[in-house]
Amino acid sequence: MIKVGIYGYGNLGRGIECAIKQNPDMELVAVFTRRDPSTVKILTEGVTVYKTEDALNMTDKIDVMILCGGSAKDLPEQTPYLAKYFNVVDSFDTHAKIPEHFSNVDKSCKESGRVGIISVGWDPGMFSLNRLYASCILPEGKDYTFWGKGVSQGHSDAIRRVAGVKNGKQYTIPVEKALDAVRSGENPDLTTREKHIRECFVVAEDGADLNRIEKEIKEMPNYFADYDTTVHFISEEELQKNHSGIPHGGFVIRSGKTGWNKENNHIIEYSLKLDSNPEFTASVIVAYARACYKMSKEGQCGCKTVFDIAPCYLSLLSGEEIRKNML
Amino acid sequence: MIKVGIYGYGNLGRGIECAIKQNPDMELVAVFTRRDPSTVKILTEGVTVYKTEDALNMTDKIDVMILCGGSAKDLPEQTPYLAKYFNVVDSFDTHAKIPEHFSNVDKSCKESGRVGIISVGWDPGMFSLNRLYASCILPEGKDYTFWGKGVSQGHSDAIRRVAGVKNGKQYTIPVEKALDAVRSGENPDLTTREKHIRECFVVAEDGADLNRIEKEIKEMPNYFADYDTTVHFISEEELQKNHSGIPHGGFVIRSGKTGWNKENNHIIEYSLKLDSNPEFTASVIVAYARACYKMSKEGQCGCKTVFDIAPCYLSLLSGEEIRKNML
Repeated sequence: MIKVGIYGYGNLGRGIECAIKQNPDMELVAVFTRRDPSTVKILTEGVTVYKTEDALNMTDKIDVMILCGGSAKDLPEQTPYLAKYFNVVDSFDTHAKIPEHFSNVDKSCKESGRVGIISVGWDPGMFSLNRLYASCILPEGKDYTFWGKGVSQGHSDAIRRVAGVKNGKQYTIPVEKALDAVRSGENPDLTTREKHIRECFVVAEDGADLNRIEKEIKEMPNYFADYDTTVHFISEEELQKNHSGIPHGGFVIRSGKTGWNKENNHIIEYSLKLDSNPEFTASVIVAYARACYKMSKEGQCGCKTVFDIAPCYLSLLSGEEIRKNML
Repeated sequence: MIKVGIYGYGNLGRGIECAIKQNPDMELVAVFTRRDPSTVKILTEGVTVYKTEDALNMTDKIDVMILCGGSAKDLPEQTPYLAKYFNVVDSFDTHAKIPEHFSNVDKSCKESGRVGIISVGWDPGMFSLNRLYASCILPEGKDYTFWGKGVSQGHSDAIRRVAGVKNGKQYTIPVEKALDAVRSGENPDLTTREKHIRECFVVAEDGADLNRIEKEIKEMPNYFADYDTTVHFISEEELQKNHSGIPHGGFVIRSGKTGWNKENNHIIEYSLKLDSNPEFTASVIVAYARACYKMSKEGQCGCKTVFDIAPCYLSLLSGEEIRKNML
């Protein structure tokens, strides 16, 4: 059994807990929280919730520590720190800061002899893998990533910061016409506005100026100004009833040419349609936690990403079994 | 530069030649044929066509030998034989015999200290990879592979063996309704007939009994009897004009559940739409030829499949570059 610890227990941590239950070679041994452990109720019977400070007492009881904190403030500190004591996996997703994070985690891992896998999930993660595979197969081509339909946490937060807004949810939606143009092989150049639309469901405070709120949202720089944005005002009840899920998904499409005179076109498309963004992300992470364990057992160490890990490491099955059943 | 040899020069060999031209770190150094070399015209200027027997004189001039023979008779002999002298890549696609082929190639590679990568292409190959990744991420789920729309060589050959048939092409087409049912997450059990239809374009000999030909095709066991098959009689000119391409493609879809009570559904879909089946297969093989070269340079040896190879090995770019640009 692979003994797993969860460090941070929000939506992602709960997703990890659920995913561990679906993998018969894994066992949850501890959850660590910054909150008062007595206030944190988890789903798995018989597993103790500890304070984060207690983690270092359990270095011999945990094969892989899965970090479930945020990318903005938690992971840049936590992953390099914990990699000094544990094999670790995180879902660090600030694309621009990945090189720096990689280097920090690698340094800790090289000192401790542990394996650290960073930026695991679907983007970064499975989408990155598909961008890499497709670009290696079709070097003369172009790739496109579309996100959605799904809830963007950052954009929903931005809506809720507008004066007069009580609550809100934002959906990122790929533009069907743009998807079709990409799939046709015409390699279009697409502006931000042409690729995605943004749909907002807003609960306004009583008596708030709806026109002003709508205008403020639509003109918000970075978040909405570059997109065609629609704003729907709804009641809190309707928001809870119809918009409480956390679905997401998207598409990675590469269109490329082959042939002596580039006469043939090819489309590679990878897509996800997810009822629960955090649970799917967690499922990817747990598969890579298995890889982390296996690589560590082999004596490997250092920081890795999805690019560095042979697919067979993710599987519970032997090389023989996967060749026989899946090749 | 990675020095590549092509062993066998049919549609696949020509595809390899085209793909090498698209990869700036690769160079075609020789083509080997069982035919009289003077009768084989290749596309690349300045490259010599040799007899297959001459290959063993060139073990120090070729970094990777790409085998382009057939899976039925050529590769079971050629790959284990050439792996005694070269790093090799093949596209062996007889699914049931992969374990045996793997073991034969592995034995040769272990003796010679070379790397052999077998069963590279899209199925087996990219489709296999997607079945593996998706099943590791969503262990409680089901996966579906659909092929087409595309030309099946085996089924086209079967048509041409019917008495009174001069020429013919067969398209395998996935049933849209079945695709939709899978994408909806209902995890349907699908019969052979429900998954694919077969469409045949047949050129009959003058005066042949068309009803008898149609009946014989539709009732042919293994090939057509289990499918809804349509037969169109057309002229040789029309066949040449509209059906001379070799398109193919398909879908690998996994539908799976997550959540403490399996309350959330997820769909992972990978699809290919290919103008030229052999050129796309060749493009995948050439990317894995790079991996073969890099792994051999690292001192690895033995037989590998796509499951055993970390994605970064396929890329021309450094680890730093792919982390920065694709993660």
